[in-house]
Amino acid sequence: MPIRVTIWNEFRHEKTNETIRNIYPDGIHNTIGAAVKQRLGDAVDINSATLDEPEHGLTQDVVDHTDVMLWWGHAAHQEVADEIVERVYRRVLKGMGLMVLHSSHYSKIFKRLMGTDCGLLWREAAERERIWCVNPGHPITNGLGAYIELDHSEMYGEHFDIPTPDELIYISWFEGGEVFRTGCTWTRGKGRVFYFGAGHETFPIYHNADIQQVIANGVQWLAPAPASPYRENAAHAPVPLSPIAGDHEVDESIH
Amino acid sequence: MPIRVTIWNEFRHEKTNETIRNIYPDGIHNTIGAAVKQRLGDAVDINSATLDEPEHGLTQDVVDHTDVMLWWGHAAHQEVADEIVERVYRRVLKGMGLMVLHSSHYSKIFKRLMGTDCGLLWREAAERERIWCVNPGHPITNGLGAYIELDHSEMYGEHFDIPTPDELIYISWFEGGEVFRTGCTWTRGKGRVFYFGAGHETFPIYHNADIQQVIANGVQWLAPAPASPYRENAAHAPVPLSPIAGDHEVDESIH
Amino acid sequence: MPIRVTIWNEFRHEKTNETIRNIYPDGIHNTIGAAVKQRLGDAVDINSATLDEPEHGLTQDVVDHTDVMLWWGHAAHQEVADEIVERVYRRVLKGMGLMVLHSSHYSKIFKRLMGTDCGLLWREAAERERIWCVNPGHPITNGLGAYIELDHSEMYGEHFDIPTPDELIYISWFEGGEVFRTGCTWTRGKGRVFYFGAGHETFPIYHNADIQQVIANGVQWLAPAPASPYRENAAHAPVPLSPIAGDHEVDESIH
Amino acid sequence: MPIRVTIWNEFRHEKTNETIRNIYPDGIHNTIGAAVKQRLGDAVDINSATLDEPEHGLTQDVVDHTDVMLWWGHAAHQEVADEIVERVYRRVLKGMGLMVLHSSHYSKIFKRLMGTDCGLLWREAAERERIWCVNPGHPITNGLGAYIELDHSEMYGEHFDIPTPDELIYISWFEGGEVFRTGCTWTRGKGRVFYFGAGHETFPIYHNADIQQVIANGVQWLAPAPASPYRENAAHAPVPLSPIAGDHEVDESIH
Repeated sequence: MPIRVTIWNEFRHEKTNETIRNIYPDGIHNTIGAAVKQRLGDAVDINSATLDEPEHGLTQDVVDHTDVMLWWGHAAHQEVADEIVERVYRRVLKGMGLMVLHSSHYSKIFKRLMGTDCGLLWREAAERERIWCVNPGHPITNGLGAYIELDHSEMYGEHFDIPTPDELIYISWFEGGEVFRTGCTWTRGKGRVFYFGAGHETFPIYHNADIQQVIANGVQWLAPAPASPYRENAAHAPVPLSPIAGDHEVDESIH
Repeated sequence: MPIRVTIWNEFRHEKTNETIRNIYPDGIHNTIGAAVKQRLGDAVDINSATLDEPEHGLTQDVVDHTDVMLWWGHAAHQEVADEIVERVYRRVLKGMGLMVLHSSHYSKIFKRLMGTDCGLLWREAAERERIWCVNPGHPITNGLGAYIELDHSEMYGEHFDIPTPDELIYISWFEGGEVFRTGCTWTRGKGRVFYFGAGHETFPIYHNADIQQVIANGVQWLAPAPASPYRENAAHAPVPLSPIAGDHEVDESIH
Repeated sequence: MPIRVTIWNEFRHEKTNETIRNIYPDGIHNTIGAAVKQRLGDAVDINSATLDEPEHGLTQDVVDHTDVMLWWGHAAHQEVADEIVERVYRRVLKGMGLMVLHSSHYSKIFKRLMGTDCGLLWREAAERERIWCVNPGHPITNGLGAYIELDHSEMYGEHFDIPTPDELIYISWFEGGEVFRTGCTWTRGKGRVFYFGAGHETFPIYHNADIQQVIANGVQWLAPAPASPYRENAAHAPVPLSPIAGDHEVDESIH
Repeated sequence: MPIRVTIWNEFRHEKTNETIRNIYPDGIHNTIGAAVKQRLGDAVDINSATLDEPEHGLTQDVVDHTDVMLWWGHAAHQEVADEIVERVYRRVLKGMGLMVLHSSHYSKIFKRLMGTDCGLLWREAAERERIWCVNPGHPITNGLGAYIELDHSEMYGEHFDIPTPDELIYISWFEGGEVFRTGCTWTRGKGRVFYFGAGHETFPIYHNADIQQVIANGVQWLAPAPASPYRENAAHAPVPLSPIAGDHEVDESIH
């Protein structure tokens, strides 16, 4: 069964700014979706959703049938309805993977899952970025080298106010003098979260083959394992005394 | 300068239930406070706050002048005002330590900081608990042995829906067949969080010398380092190109 | 291309002890191998190696062509040649996955990779064990429930002297009063390590379907990602100034 | 009782190279020792030991009475006797703190504790380094700002082949285009390890007040907690069945 991917995009910049429209004429979501499809083929089923659709395109049905969601937001984080954020949040806890891209570090859903403020330093100076791999055996780095280089990028810098990542995979170097933990993972409930800082609306970063490869790898890594044939883990519930206590003879005969 | 400690207690059970009042006649907060004071003396300045006071006793001034807060809630989590939760949350990110005790795993403040549901299994059967140390060099275990034993305890069991702890210090064994990550730490912003599962209102667990020692150790470990003489770390802010970058060409044309 | 699995077994107990031979007539390695093969089919190519073969069955060629190695040792850790340990160690750093089973916690290869003493408490009393999942979204837990129960098991208890696991997946409860971090992972170089405590030579634990499932899941999780089409990450080497630095002055006078 | 600090220095460069002698006329160990003493005063008792002394100055008695050891080696790692390395290793597992400085990333003791190869990229080009704090609430960062800047430094770059740090505190940026996890901690047994990459023999880095502050903070953080009044944690030992199993009445009366 293919991984059911939903790429959520704010999709405003592309409609209002000519520079951005030239780079992403069909929206950032379609550029990313095509790149993932090209690499993963039948292993993925790609859909998208955008802010200005009803329920932001994230109806209960869409969310319930998504294995991996990608999130790209920037200027309109506050317009995302709390109810939808809660819906996505609940789905992550139940096992959906979530990839949080670039400026979505400041989205409601990311802050909700992190429990911190998620602030950082930034600067738009079209400077050089080098994304260094610090976890070279991780599946998300598959097929990639020691670093990825971008000629022009927006700087994101430390301190990035996130909880300690479960796994730190990439650290960015910026020409102007900063570093940034740009590839990080966490587990929340049964779901996984992958933050990847690369990408800005005014640079063609999602057209870069290495960046596309990281995203495709991330989709595979975020996909939940197939459904369990066993019972679910119980959630916040009282349990009776199990049959164990007191009724069990310790067998000493074997020794 | 002493560590400024504020012990927050829901303080309802002690007023309405005779069994509980017999165990904690002045409230759980005063039992804990006396135990910490006895161990740390002039190194701490102990205060308390309770749910039914105005602003739950947690005015902006109280919160601003607290270095380490302890939290004990159980039946009235929903009565804690969101505004106060936000106040405490902001203070943790700025560096206050927070100790979350027992049933406060389901408090608003803990869930807010964790980004997960914080559910668990539980059972009241007055069964035996053994709290095993799995991080014996950690300061929170100072003066304590391989395990702490409680004759009668409420069972809390896995799966405990928390993010991966930065440090796992204690794991509980329960007679009825469960285990529980009962001593865990996390960092959130500049602040530290210590969850410690021991303690129930109907058992005299906060009178146990070992449990008191863990709590006193926790207060010391949670205390923020003295204020920095240097400038603050910047928070979510644009920054200019630093002097470093001043000697190379930055391409501004793209903007 | 299938995952190339090599199951290494000390293979002494099965030849000298009738009880053990009755449980594992063809050796523990063959029981485990058949179980993995049954579950993963063509996705794995299973081989084995044993202590008393030349080079313990782990020639350079065998090691070089292994993607995932399983290790079961107990009474003869000291008979494993240091040269072979070093060979396996080097292969892990280059990306091979290693599953360390039960009493192999005290093997040379595990101690070498951990950097600690790897001691623990133990007791043979055929007591009940419950293996609780504390990371329910992890691929190693796929298809399994909240816990696995074994009627008769050897107790392994804390403090288990290992480095903090990168991921803690299973914690065992034992009838006699102990807990144990029985399912843990680490990364070493490009390779992954999974310690799984279940299994003892005098109990039919490797015939248990749940235990077999964990091991099969572990094999899949440990398998390295397909070979990179890009250049290798450099290892301990001096590097020239990159082209980036070419447009600024570097002060060489100090050398 | 003061923290008993032993600063170990290879102490060869300072005797043979005039540039280095001019920077550290009494040896790197004395520069560091004076800086720590100036900051911590009576809270520390500072001693040193060097390679060319008998037993490298690290007799059993010296090691047994050291709370925190600092290690600086570079060109003569192979001359350190395995027996002494083992002695220091055993002491770390029992609770001694170890600070590993700069080129000591490739020392025998660090590799022994890490279980990896500890390789990295390097370049001597006297380039600018910025050491960014990514864990601003950590005691090791006390009194320090968002970053530390060094005008001339040796570059150390990723991939740094270490196990995932328990805590990542500092990441370095280098002018030539690299990043480096330069401030990392791990726990090994009851002991703590702090690697700090700053410092090179041909630059006056240990005269920098911020670097000195990090080292002094590190000494405090590495110091083991006072000796426990309780029994030791048992190490690799069989244990009898405890009194718990089967002989305990569950008290239902309280409910």
